[in-house]
Amino acid sequence: MHDNRNIRELIACQKPGWSLEQRFYTDPDIYQLELDRVLMRNWMFAGNVSEFAEPGDFKVSRMAHESAIVVRGQDGELRAFANVCRHRGSLVCLENEGNTRKFTCPYHGWVYDTTGRLIGARNMPETFSRSDYGLRQVSVDTVHGLVFICFGDNPPSLSAARDELAEPMRPFDFPDLKVAASKTYPIAANWKLAVENYQECYHCAPAHPDYAKMHTLMLDDAKYARVQKNMLARLEACGLKEFQIRKNDMHTPDGQQGYTYWRSAMFEGYLTGSRDGQPIAPLLGDVKGYDGGASDIAIGPVSYFLVYSDHVVGYVFTPVDRGHCECSVTWLVRGDARDGVDYNREELMWLWDVTTLADEKIIVDNWKGVQSRFYRPGPFSLMEQWESGWVQWLLHELRKAPQLL
Amino acid sequence: MHDNRNIRELIACQKPGWSLEQRFYTDPDIYQLELDRVLMRNWMFAGNVSEFAEPGDFKVSRMAHESAIVVRGQDGELRAFANVCRHRGSLVCLENEGNTRKFTCPYHGWVYDTTGRLIGARNMPETFSRSDYGLRQVSVDTVHGLVFICFGDNPPSLSAARDELAEPMRPFDFPDLKVAASKTYPIAANWKLAVENYQECYHCAPAHPDYAKMHTLMLDDAKYARVQKNMLARLEACGLKEFQIRKNDMHTPDGQQGYTYWRSAMFEGYLTGSRDGQPIAPLLGDVKGYDGGASDIAIGPVSYFLVYSDHVVGYVFTPVDRGHCECSVTWLVRGDARDGVDYNREELMWLWDVTTLADEKIIVDNWKGVQSRFYRPGPFSLMEQWESGWVQWLLHELRKAPQLL
Amino acid sequence: MHDNRNIRELIACQKPGWSLEQRFYTDPDIYQLELDRVLMRNWMFAGNVSEFAEPGDFKVSRMAHESAIVVRGQDGELRAFANVCRHRGSLVCLENEGNTRKFTCPYHGWVYDTTGRLIGARNMPETFSRSDYGLRQVSVDTVHGLVFICFGDNPPSLSAARDELAEPMRPFDFPDLKVAASKTYPIAANWKLAVENYQECYHCAPAHPDYAKMHTLMLDDAKYARVQKNMLARLEACGLKEFQIRKNDMHTPDGQQGYTYWRSAMFEGYLTGSRDGQPIAPLLGDVKGYDGGASDIAIGPVSYFLVYSDHVVGYVFTPVDRGHCECSVTWLVRGDARDGVDYNREELMWLWDVTTLADEKIIVDNWKGVQSRFYRPGPFSLMEQWESGWVQWLLHELRKAPQLL
Repeated sequence: MHDNRNIRELIACQKPGWSLEQRFYTDPDIYQLELDRVLMRNWMFAGNVSEFAEPGDFKVSRMAHESAIVVRGQDGELRAFANVCRHRGSLVCLENEGNTRKFTCPYHGWVYDTTGRLIGARNMPETFSRSDYGLRQVSVDTVHGLVFICFGDNPPSLSAARDELAEPMRPFDFPDLKVAASKTYPIAANWKLAVENYQECYHCAPAHPDYAKMHTLMLDDAKYARVQKNMLARLEACGLKEFQIRKNDMHTPDGQQGYTYWRSAMFEGYLTGSRDGQPIAPLLGDVKGYDGGASDIAIGPVSYFLVYSDHVVGYVFTPVDRGHCECSVTWLVRGDARDGVDYNREELMWLWDVTTLADEKIIVDNWKGVQSRFYRPGPFSLMEQWESGWVQWLLHELRKAPQLL
Repeated sequence: MHDNRNIRELIACQKPGWSLEQRFYTDPDIYQLELDRVLMRNWMFAGNVSEFAEPGDFKVSRMAHESAIVVRGQDGELRAFANVCRHRGSLVCLENEGNTRKFTCPYHGWVYDTTGRLIGARNMPETFSRSDYGLRQVSVDTVHGLVFICFGDNPPSLSAARDELAEPMRPFDFPDLKVAASKTYPIAANWKLAVENYQECYHCAPAHPDYAKMHTLMLDDAKYARVQKNMLARLEACGLKEFQIRKNDMHTPDGQQGYTYWRSAMFEGYLTGSRDGQPIAPLLGDVKGYDGGASDIAIGPVSYFLVYSDHVVGYVFTPVDRGHCECSVTWLVRGDARDGVDYNREELMWLWDVTTLADEKIIVDNWKGVQSRFYRPGPFSLMEQWESGWVQWLLHELRKAPQLL
Repeated sequence: MHDNRNIRELIACQKPGWSLEQRFYTDPDIYQLELDRVLMRNWMFAGNVSEFAEPGDFKVSRMAHESAIVVRGQDGELRAFANVCRHRGSLVCLENEGNTRKFTCPYHGWVYDTTGRLIGARNMPETFSRSDYGLRQVSVDTVHGLVFICFGDNPPSLSAARDELAEPMRPFDFPDLKVAASKTYPIAANWKLAVENYQECYHCAPAHPDYAKMHTLMLDDAKYARVQKNMLARLEACGLKEFQIRKNDMHTPDGQQGYTYWRSAMFEGYLTGSRDGQPIAPLLGDVKGYDGGASDIAIGPVSYFLVYSDHVVGYVFTPVDRGHCECSVTWLVRGDARDGVDYNREELMWLWDVTTLADEKIIVDNWKGVQSRFYRPGPFSLMEQWESGWVQWLLHELRKAPQLL
């Protein structure tokens, strides 16, 4: 059982079209490498701009040992900061979200304004200059209303995503969306198993009866083409257009963050992701009717969006440690929709709550088996091509680590 | 406190007749070595053949990160498989036992028949051949009705055990036994401390008042000889014979799995391992009466059986990780005995439930002390010779690791 | 994020006046080094002599994987022993405190008397000599009624502490104190963050409203001097004298354990550490009245005492593992004070129970931030000079490790 291959050799041995070797899931050094080369160097979804509408609006996002405060400054600017006091390192902000004029560290009372400047620090030596101790900045940027952060220094550009997704995203008016609900699902498994799970619908038929009743991604190509054609016929009347954008993984433009967009039909009779397929919230933005489709958007390696005609579901996958991760799900509706009147929060959450809870279970059972000495990489099915591409990209990014050269 | 000895030196320093050095319990590298050289290379008890009577009867056994399905195929053959899907590595079977015609992986629905062949896998590439992706086999074999599995490739032979235990085991008719109860006890301690605990009765007098009232193993030699003689006088009339077989540990025949058998008297007045010493279930097999004894059988390093005249208790000790293990106890009675009529399940479990719960506590306190920097190997008592022999064998097996040469 | 500096380089890089680099909190090798060079080589508070008044009185103290029994022998001598059986390593004593004539190991029944001698061990080989297997001794010593233990072989001397603290401690009659209450607070953080927290009152104003109402340590120098002056004026009438002793950390005399003593005023109107500042227990020893002060005593790196006029609160900080520690708090009153009559146990505990619970929370939030890759050492305030000195001493001790030379 002694595998003496170093990480470089291990990456070189990995066959395209096959699932990852065990050590990519279990080796602590590879987990560190993933943090350094992938997780800290790419963007993750941190909320909708509507959550930061007013000066002082803030929200905290976490990944592994990192915590970031995203805040709309009193000057109107959106910024993100490491949630780490420059004095002794305490978390500065303990709330998950709110509105504030300043952040006071709960430990020793150092005070930062909403632009990150240190504005209060008692009893410091004379040589101490407050201007040297602002909160450390974390990159923040937006894509048509979706807010992203990156914990690393030189994040890839989001400009290509912004340019090419402008038209596809426009009808849904993302900047106007409001968060109707959010829930975080802890998963006792390596984070990659959760991301891989999200990217393929090969498991949808056996594992998600409710989802499989309406979504068609688990169909084979011929059947899928049929329902897809019907949706495309309805698209224009609903104010939408067709786009098939795959600029993620190895198709990512140089220096850019990867992104994708395409719209898939649901089964006939299903208008949206609701229990009975009937409308569940007001139509988004300029959408004029139900085409019976849902758009999949990916931006970066851990953030995904499913865009129904009347609501959006956002997903972020973040590691906690090598064997634990979290899936944070956000449900978004039209900005002026009222809970209990225009939509029902519990009904809105239903489909992806049951689906994510079922996923949690199958991912954990996958993790158990992957740790066996009998586990070997297996061949991907035709329905796991996105996952397969993501794995190739991940290996490609790990390979760039200077210590592996 | 810096112990720079490598594992080879550490093994060489270990004195026969003394308990193990601290690092054998605490060093993660030694734990890995034990998994590779001992735990995965020897047989462990996985049930009675009566649990696999019908085609499709299956049961899952676990050790560390491994999980195996033992199943009676529709063709009547008994087999064992790694419980790991050949597609993406999920556990295939989530139930502990049952009867089935096929195993459907809960993740992506790959289907295996009861002979391990892959018989269903949707949407695979054209080059994919199902015949290449049967479940990986795990060794399975039986010793007169007791089913054993081995996770390693070249397990030692069970033929010597089968041959030499045939006569001693015959009167009890093991193949006819049925499982009346089973219970798994989690123990927060290194697995070896649990196995060591089982192998010595030096602790019985101070730690197990109920057990010590009836069992005589904690007596010194002279007293033990007296009660033993009385039992031997009754043996033949009960349809039993005397055997003293010690072919385990360093006495193990070449290429064979070690085994032992001997029968010990209980205190006068105790006929079986019950609360009052009175019969608790129908006599086993061809046993004709109560000789007041109990046979100890060991097969391999982690499986033990205590054979009273009217029931059998089986024990398997398996690590979970370096600091946690489990003891799985199985109570077996005559195949035609009826719960609530011929025996009472709770009464049957009583003695070894209280004893194992007490053992759990003392093993955990042993583990706490063993981790202290004041711990040093101590001398075994005269009543710990089996444990001492087991330790010698364990070191002998570790020493064979090629990386230690 | 690859920090390839070895520990020696890391220590050399550490700037005086700044908090520790991340790896001092997170690196498992540094934690081991701290155990070896600091925690096991210095004294920790283990109780008051009044807890060991009678022959056979015993009490168990723990740190990391170590457990020690402090016991007054039947010969009247106070001793400490590793709580590890010389046979197979079990904890010998499972109670936290009590009175006994002998310690019987719960595992195999080896019996030790109160002087640590093995006086019972059944069934041992003929060559076995009991006199070789007494409990291993742990150093124990007292400072005017306070009992200390050290797990290491050559502890620093407590003679200087005893000499110089004799006069300051005398009025409070420590040997006469009795334990009125004790409570252990688990803290999910590296142990140093807890010790650092105790040593500075920069956090008192923002984090401890109840404490900050009465204690003045969080005042700046000028304000503090004013209240201090008022207390000093009352000192003599109360039977006390002024002392300012700082012989800890880098000021520690050669070969000695460090120690400190000084008395600080509380705010006017506060006579003691009670909810309303009013007396809460009978005056200690020869104290003649309330001066409105409280003495801080430190002896060694993890033991601290706060001496009010009518009660004493003792603190010990001990690691459990790299990311967990415990704070054990002991409340002491005059030996003849009666609970419910002369003092109320709950009221006595109130201030330092709420304060320690609040500290637990801020220390855990500190630990979370310190693990971020955005954490950098920050400059200590003027009110964190004790902590800064302690950090310097810690580094000085680590630097002595032979493996770092």
